[in-house]
Amino acid sequence: MDSVSDKSLEYWMHRALQLASLGEGRTSPNPLVGAVVLNKRGNLVGEGFHARAGAPHAEVGALEQAGKEAIDGTLIVTLEPCCHHGRTPPCTEMILASGLKRVVVALEDPDPRVSGSGLHRLMQEGIEVVTGVLQELAAEQNKSFLHRVSTGRPWGILKWGMSFDGRTALTNGVSKWITNETSRDWVHSLRGTVDAVIVGGGTVRTDDPLLTSRGKSTPEPIRVVFSRSLELPSNARVWDTSIARTLIAFPKETSEDLLESFPEGFEKLSLPSCEPIQLLLGLAKKDCNSVLWECGPRLASLAIKQGCIQELAIMMSPKLMGGVLAATPIAELGFTSMSEVIKLSRYELKAFDDDLLLRATLL
Amino acid sequence: MDSVSDKSLEYWMHRALQLASLGEGRTSPNPLVGAVVLNKRGNLVGEGFHARAGAPHAEVGALEQAGKEAIDGTLIVTLEPCCHHGRTPPCTEMILASGLKRVVVALEDPDPRVSGSGLHRLMQEGIEVVTGVLQELAAEQNKSFLHRVSTGRPWGILKWGMSFDGRTALTNGVSKWITNETSRDWVHSLRGTVDAVIVGGGTVRTDDPLLTSRGKSTPEPIRVVFSRSLELPSNARVWDTSIARTLIAFPKETSEDLLESFPEGFEKLSLPSCEPIQLLLGLAKKDCNSVLWECGPRLASLAIKQGCIQELAIMMSPKLMGGVLAATPIAELGFTSMSEVIKLSRYELKAFDDDLLLRATLL
Repeated sequence: MDSVSDKSLEYWMHRALQLASLGEGRTSPNPLVGAVVLNKRGNLVGEGFHARAGAPHAEVGALEQAGKEAIDGTLIVTLEPCCHHGRTPPCTEMILASGLKRVVVALEDPDPRVSGSGLHRLMQEGIEVVTGVLQELAAEQNKSFLHRVSTGRPWGILKWGMSFDGRTALTNGVSKWITNETSRDWVHSLRGTVDAVIVGGGTVRTDDPLLTSRGKSTPEPIRVVFSRSLELPSNARVWDTSIARTLIAFPKETSEDLLESFPEGFEKLSLPSCEPIQLLLGLAKKDCNSVLWECGPRLASLAIKQGCIQELAIMMSPKLMGGVLAATPIAELGFTSMSEVIKLSRYELKAFDDDLLLRATLL
Repeated sequence: MDSVSDKSLEYWMHRALQLASLGEGRTSPNPLVGAVVLNKRGNLVGEGFHARAGAPHAEVGALEQAGKEAIDGTLIVTLEPCCHHGRTPPCTEMILASGLKRVVVALEDPDPRVSGSGLHRLMQEGIEVVTGVLQELAAEQNKSFLHRVSTGRPWGILKWGMSFDGRTALTNGVSKWITNETSRDWVHSLRGTVDAVIVGGGTVRTDDPLLTSRGKSTPEPIRVVFSRSLELPSNARVWDTSIARTLIAFPKETSEDLLESFPEGFEKLSLPSCEPIQLLLGLAKKDCNSVLWECGPRLASLAIKQGCIQELAIMMSPKLMGGVLAATPIAELGFTSMSEVIKLSRYELKAFDDDLLLRATLL
């Protein structure tokens, strides 16, 4: 029997996943990765995680910490080690040089430049390879990265706050505040976990949001204003790019003249057409693995129709607002029978004081 | 020290409340009442509850069962015994005749014909009286009765089923089925606990509901169709009065000619004006302590505005329906700032398979 049992492998993989999570919100376009090195007696001798794109891979930190203790030891890593030269040298070569006896992996890397070749390379050189340990948890942790690699588009979360009767604003547009402070604080944290926060021009005009994590994450996510008309207030808070990047996305046919009235500092993204899916393709090229949609009902329904939303974060507050013309979370989806509506297969519930959070998956 | 301790009094009062609940949905306009008799050694010798209006009071059943064992014993009853001649003789006289030493009561009866005089009568005759044992639970159990006595109107529950994005129907009016079978089954049970179920004419035209408890309660609640125009389909399922009573409520200025086209069996209620509050005053006169509003958004918002709703039962199903013109739970309430909206101070959450039930109090 091995010095490190299967049960123990899961234990250490949990630790590696924990380490990986420390990079949340900062590694894109790379995945989150955590690694642990055990020496030949099964004792912990090294830990590492991928802290941000361009920084060393998780395996590097863990193996450097382990040094000679890695000889005949085990590397436990949440994602298949890379075998290609990217911004950093291939991890497989460092593993081979370290004298490790065994490599344990949760998930194969779907990146076409890796995708099994990393593990293959290790096995060829006589390293014992174990895969699939806590695979589901690892896939859940890297769902944004996996989604972007397989579809070419960032993982999309649609967030809204509403009253118990499903209203996101009063008839006159007022929406400050439907949800409580604890909920809003959580939304700031949520922003810290994504690469970009998207609003439409209407939200900038009506709510003038800041759209940052309030310093909970560095760097802040990119704030994306998606506007067909570019008719935006020149004094909006989102133009202050000293606290976070701001990107204005617009269809290429829109005249850029209006952009001149806004304070300097923003970036621009011209799109082939004014569609959510085009915006996402553009943001994927800007290294976004995940985006948070904080938009109004029309943009939300378009994003849903184009498959841009994978997850929902619904904050519900115990209030009744009513209003025949009051805003609702989602505009027209064109359904004519109940068999067509979108069923949410999985959701979780959480309480923020008297508010409720519903998190659901749209897949 | 007494043979029946304070702790024990609460124990037996819980039992009395349990007994009282057996009459749920059948005692109106009377309250729910349960009673327990302990002999002088503190042993249970009698139980009773008020089974329906016109049937004997809870104390009567319990004391008859106890017989001579009641001598020097204790009566534990959820509501103050009556001291007036109603449909049945006053319970105070029976208590005095029974030889009881002590009477323990949860709640004073707010009925102006009782309201402390029952207890006063007992004390005058040397009976030891203890009040306020589990008073809050007893008030909760009889909240409909207490509300009707203090306001002259039945307790109102507003129920709706909606998707996670707050829609109660698709744009074309289709709403079958938003919620799952377990939720709908619970709604049938809920109907069994109230005295009347109210819909507007629009609901009859669009949904053609049956509005019964599906036999979960006998008798079924009165089905109330509240219509200004009386333009109702002559073949609606609600006209089948072999399964439940049906009451058509309409303002007195509406011509009754159209009523002739409906099958026989329904009752009619002419109201001074077409307002929810007038309907409730009419239903209170018909012995209703509680009503369930299963109406559309316009009637719901009117009922809320006129203080006709004390409680909400919101069934939420994990679906997205969207729809710019799709129905929402509540129409215009006229709020222009968030400080005006209705805050729900208390709510409970329950899962029905994948649906969620939110029960909230509007007080």
